[in-house]
Amino acid sequence: MSKETTKKKFTKHASPTADGSSKPDLMYDRNVPKPSHAEYARTLIAKMDVATLCTISEKSKGHPYGSFVTYAMHNGDLIFLLSQLAEHTKNLNANSKASALIAETGEGNPLALSRVTLVGECLEVQDDERESVKKSFIEAHESASVYADWEDFAFFRLNVESVRYIGGFGRMSWVNESRWNSSEPDPLLQNSDDIITHMNEDHSDALVLYCQTMSKAKETSHAVMTHIDRYGFEMMATINSETKPIRLGFEKDVKTPDEARIELVKMVKEARKLISQN
Amino acid sequence: MSKETTKKKFTKHASPTADGSSKPDLMYDRNVPKPSHAEYARTLIAKMDVATLCTISEKSKGHPYGSFVTYAMHNGDLIFLLSQLAEHTKNLNANSKASALIAETGEGNPLALSRVTLVGECLEVQDDERESVKKSFIEAHESASVYADWEDFAFFRLNVESVRYIGGFGRMSWVNESRWNSSEPDPLLQNSDDIITHMNEDHSDALVLYCQTMSKAKETSHAVMTHIDRYGFEMMATINSETKPIRLGFEKDVKTPDEARIELVKMVKEARKLISQN
Repeated sequence: MSKETTKKKFTKHASPTADGSSKPDLMYDRNVPKPSHAEYARTLIAKMDVATLCTISEKSKGHPYGSFVTYAMHNGDLIFLLSQLAEHTKNLNANSKASALIAETGEGNPLALSRVTLVGECLEVQDDERESVKKSFIEAHESASVYADWEDFAFFRLNVESVRYIGGFGRMSWVNESRWNSSEPDPLLQNSDDIITHMNEDHSDALVLYCQTMSKAKETSHAVMTHIDRYGFEMMATINSETKPIRLGFEKDVKTPDEARIELVKMVKEARKLISQN
Repeated sequence: MSKETTKKKFTKHASPTADGSSKPDLMYDRNVPKPSHAEYARTLIAKMDVATLCTISEKSKGHPYGSFVTYAMHNGDLIFLLSQLAEHTKNLNANSKASALIAETGEGNPLALSRVTLVGECLEVQDDERESVKKSFIEAHESASVYADWEDFAFFRLNVESVRYIGGFGRMSWVNESRWNSSEPDPLLQNSDDIITHMNEDHSDALVLYCQTMSKAKETSHAVMTHIDRYGFEMMATINSETKPIRLGFEKDVKTPDEARIELVKMVKEARKLISQN
């Protein structure tokens, strides 16, 4: 069968969702504050610790070559501790053009998860910066201290020039260097799991109240918090037999778990006031 | 500090182990039959379903570009279903040189896990092969049936020319095309978890007996099966307060769980005979 007869018409805006259905109507304000793609990418990188390093193969002339590496961040760039015997090191010594892909791991459709590609020149770290780079790397990978000083290992740095972020189906953009350098990982990253567990275990009534009063999901009977960041938080709300995503924003940027708690309490009070007015 | 003063001497054979220690003495026959690197790599690919596709970037001229893809196998080659809007597709349409990295996921030191890089030309699948390629892909990724026929999606095939397999610290080689094409995933792959669970739950006495009689670990007090394949199986044996890896081979190649059971029973009988002779 030829393609012409088997293929359906595809329109650019009908991007597939995780379950293959078409995009649902949003139940919350589309303009709610949320992290930029640069911030999402920075947070993903802070959360993960392995990447695919892409180099230009010496052996397979001109082919891009993917290899598995551990990494750390150092002043907005990725750093690696590489063996001189490894293919990627031979490749970089001949051609410094590189990129690194870092992909989120998790359940469900893998294409719904986020990933980021950092593109730039990847060069061996020079003596004057070696100690500070080593410190960043060992902080992230303690066991590497055993061989960090071996003669056949060297630190390399991927100097980030451009960044491609893909947050899942249809959420993607190029991030430029200056935007990248002025962004940081979400300050709640280390605490978000604890906050989410606490809210779901002890304050599920508050989550329902948020949805009923601050989103279009007035009929919410149950809600589960799924995500929190400095600008707001996300829930899956059950409305009749369906579940819908809801994102709500904080009144002000929060930087600590305590500041998040204050905002969440303020919003419950506001939600109770709104309910009592109806 | 200069490198010369901070670096220790590194000898090629002192590759780091998972915990950073030097290589321990083997407690079993080094020549026990085991899968080839080509077979390990085929099995890893059959087990996983996501890869990093490495292409040559059109936008970042000449840089290798890593992106996240799902894959399936089709006659020894990797196949992908790619959106024409995606960066990797634009890259491949301009330059078909590619590779794909597939990495095992799991606990512990990520560098102790296995990974494989497949290098070759990655080209759009032509009409005469499209239906058979589509069938292989949908078998592996059922949800892709929703958009497999959309106009802006196309199947691509990475025609494998060379393969780099890394089984963990110090276990690595290049696999050539003919070796690759004559190898297959381990036939026990789908059943190995069940066999391992069964052996550990119901036959831990047999595992101890194997170690005591068929390896150098005569003092084994406890053993846990960790792996099984067509050529043999692996255990972690507790000897005094230490644990050591043991691999034992089957007398003949096994292709089904039933054949594995027969070999394991035969070996218990043999082990009991050996014990009674001492």
